Amino acid sequence: MRAGPRRAGSASTAAAGSERVARAALTRVIEPGDECGGRWLREFGAQELLGRLTAAEDTEALPGATVRRLAGYRARAATADPARDLEAIAAAGGRFLCPGDREWPTQLDALGDARPVGLWVRGGPDLRKWAVRSVAVVGARACTPYGAHMATLLGTGLAERGWVVVSGAAYGVDGSAHRGALAAGGATVAVLACGVDVGYPRGHARLIGRIVEQGLVIGELPPGDHPTRSRFILRNRVIAALTRGTVVVEAEHRSGSLVTARCAAKLGRHTIGVPGPATSGLSAGVHELLRGEGVLVTDADDVAELVGEIGELAPDRRGPVLPRDLLDPASARVLEALPAGGAVTVTRLAHGAGTTPDDTLGRLYELHALGFVERHGDEWRLARHPVRPPNGRRGGF
Amino acid sequence: MRAGPRRAGSASTAAAGSERVARAALTRVIEPGDECGGRWLREFGAQELLGRLTAAEDTEALPGATVRRLAGYRARAATADPARDLEAIAAAGGRFLCPGDREWPTQLDALGDARPVGLWVRGGPDLRKWAVRSVAVVGARACTPYGAHMATLLGTGLAERGWVVVSGAAYGVDGSAHRGALAAGGATVAVLACGVDVGYPRGHARLIGRIVEQGLVIGELPPGDHPTRSRFILRNRVIAALTRGTVVVEAEHRSGSLVTARCAAKLGRHTIGVPGPATSGLSAGVHELLRGEGVLVTDADDVAELVGEIGELAPDRRGPVLPRDLLDPASARVLEALPAGGAVTVTRLAHGAGTTPDDTLGRLYELHALGFVERHGDEWRLARHPVRPPNGRRGGF
Repeated sequence: MRAGPRRAGSASTAAAGSERVARAALTRVIEPGDECGGRWLREFGAQELLGRLTAAEDTEALPGATVRRLAGYRARAATADPARDLEAIAAAGGRFLCPGDREWPTQLDALGDARPVGLWVRGGPDLRKWAVRSVAVVGARACTPYGAHMATLLGTGLAERGWVVVSGAAYGVDGSAHRGALAAGGATVAVLACGVDVGYPRGHARLIGRIVEQGLVIGELPPGDHPTRSRFILRNRVIAALTRGTVVVEAEHRSGSLVTARCAAKLGRHTIGVPGPATSGLSAGVHELLRGEGVLVTDADDVAELVGEIGELAPDRRGPVLPRDLLDPASARVLEALPAGGAVTVTRLAHGAGTTPDDTLGRLYELHALGFVERHGDEWRLARHPVRPPNGRRGGF
Repeated sequence: MRAGPRRAGSASTAAAGSERVARAALTRVIEPGDECGGRWLREFGAQELLGRLTAAEDTEALPGATVRRLAGYRARAATADPARDLEAIAAAGGRFLCPGDREWPTQLDALGDARPVGLWVRGGPDLRKWAVRSVAVVGARACTPYGAHMATLLGTGLAERGWVVVSGAAYGVDGSAHRGALAAGGATVAVLACGVDVGYPRGHARLIGRIVEQGLVIGELPPGDHPTRSRFILRNRVIAALTRGTVVVEAEHRSGSLVTARCAAKLGRHTIGVPGPATSGLSAGVHELLRGEGVLVTDADDVAELVGEIGELAPDRRGPVLPRDLLDPASARVLEALPAGGAVTVTRLAHGAGTTPDDTLGRLYELHALGFVERHGDEWRLARHPVRPPNGRRGGF
């Protein structure tokens, strides 16, 4: 941390709130994926950085940007109103997450200085726990009926196997993947390239509303902010980083979905593709991927086998990664409500745990990610492997 | 070589003809792919082996076979009539090739003791030279229209790029691949699982006739012999060994085409697959292949790039592998008839060389395999790289 003589210049912003408020402000200043802004943030901290950007005539205090570019940051910083944005997200029933928060998905830290400044989140479930057991299903907006069919099958199949389906809420493949997961009563996360209260694309406003109710809608952009071409592209790195693997269903050459897949590969995540007819331009990008880093899959079982295989936390192979005592009380109640033998539906379980089915489902996915429960079709049961303490890992791992 | 006391017992067969005649007889005795028979053949030579099999009560002289199995060999040997078979192939305008013959495709030697005893061949071109630059295109008999379309495209595209298309003359993918090559005025080889005069399957008798006229029809089985299930399967090893790579267009799980592809992989040939819809059972086998040893292709360019890449004799990268002086006179006349600059059609060239278009085409493919000529669509021209003497290889190879 550098504390220069101009630190006093940031007093007005610092006075306006905590580091969290400064980060909220910076989501309006630093564009998604901006590594220069990310480096400043890492070096100076959010309050200090915001202070320097809002101080009068302070161009030399931030290394690595041209005068013109710095002027852009300063202009955006001058109009940022984090208090209003935090009020807006609260009014929408959402929250703002910062790195270090209990719910922050640490997978995103793999992005280094391109890590999101913060995440705006709507929906009940715990993002960190859901991300542990998530897979991205992405692809072309103008997909073929075959692509839509495959995305739906994968969304449903992955949800039925207890995986959280992450996508971008776009038309075509993304929407089909979300809908497939929702239709199975499963878990799904939409990562938007705009404010999480915006509901873009328009035609998916109701779908996004359903995802807020049954899953999570997240994004880097503050409330009300709109998508741009570069924001779409850069949103993809969040999808890639958040998940264990990215499945591309249909994609033309040079498509955004391939960006997501290649980003996943760079981050050491699984890069996966669904083949299609060799004559289809909408499969050409996927085939390109499959000739390189991509692994070919034809159904949800293939995907689950791949992403479940070598995950650090794969609960199927190790048992729970957290002792029961550390569960939060509401999740513990859901766990308690499960019968010792046999499986129950979400509705019945919600009744037993004294909460709503949506809340129960969110907690079940948490418990699943942590290895406490198993899903069998529409029913849930206690996992059959023995519970091990956190330090009780088997030798060899 | 072992010369036992019973060697005199083979005298009657030895007297009946040369080693070649004995090999012809043994194609009726040793089933395709029989490594036990192949080992005997390697150890004793054809005449000696046939002698032992036809000698009265000689069960101990051939190690490694049960009495019952040996009885089978002996029964087949007793009825073999190589003189009749050699007459039959001559009557059909064909020939019988043995290992060591100038036209023998030495690629088959990679099969070790499972190498064909000999090859029955119909058609004008030189098999050895054609095999140098050949690719197999195989797949399901009951293929989809998509599979037939892809096989035709590949057959045509590979032929247009100067590749010899090898397949099994079966319904579905095989037939489409042959027809694609023929339609492009290209080179194609059918490897049959029966006598080369049999024309199986019946519905492809005319197609096989056209291949005899424009290309080559070959097989291990003597004239008149019929296919069996195991002969179909074992025929595939010849297709795999003969070619630089095997492309599977459509195949179900556990299909014969996958046997060919896996055999190709074992022999160090390229193993290649054309993807299809993930929902198609007829692509399931190909997708299985593409998850393992197979490389994904979507068109003839992809295939040509792969198989042309690392071939020992890839003429595109090295120039001719044989000096002009060593060409046979008829091929040399075709080469002489090519203009110094520019390209000509086969018909015009045949006129200039004083021979038929079919003969000219066969010789052009030879000259192409040897690096002397290039094909451009329907026209042929002299290769543009300089001719190098056989020992004038560039350093590093």
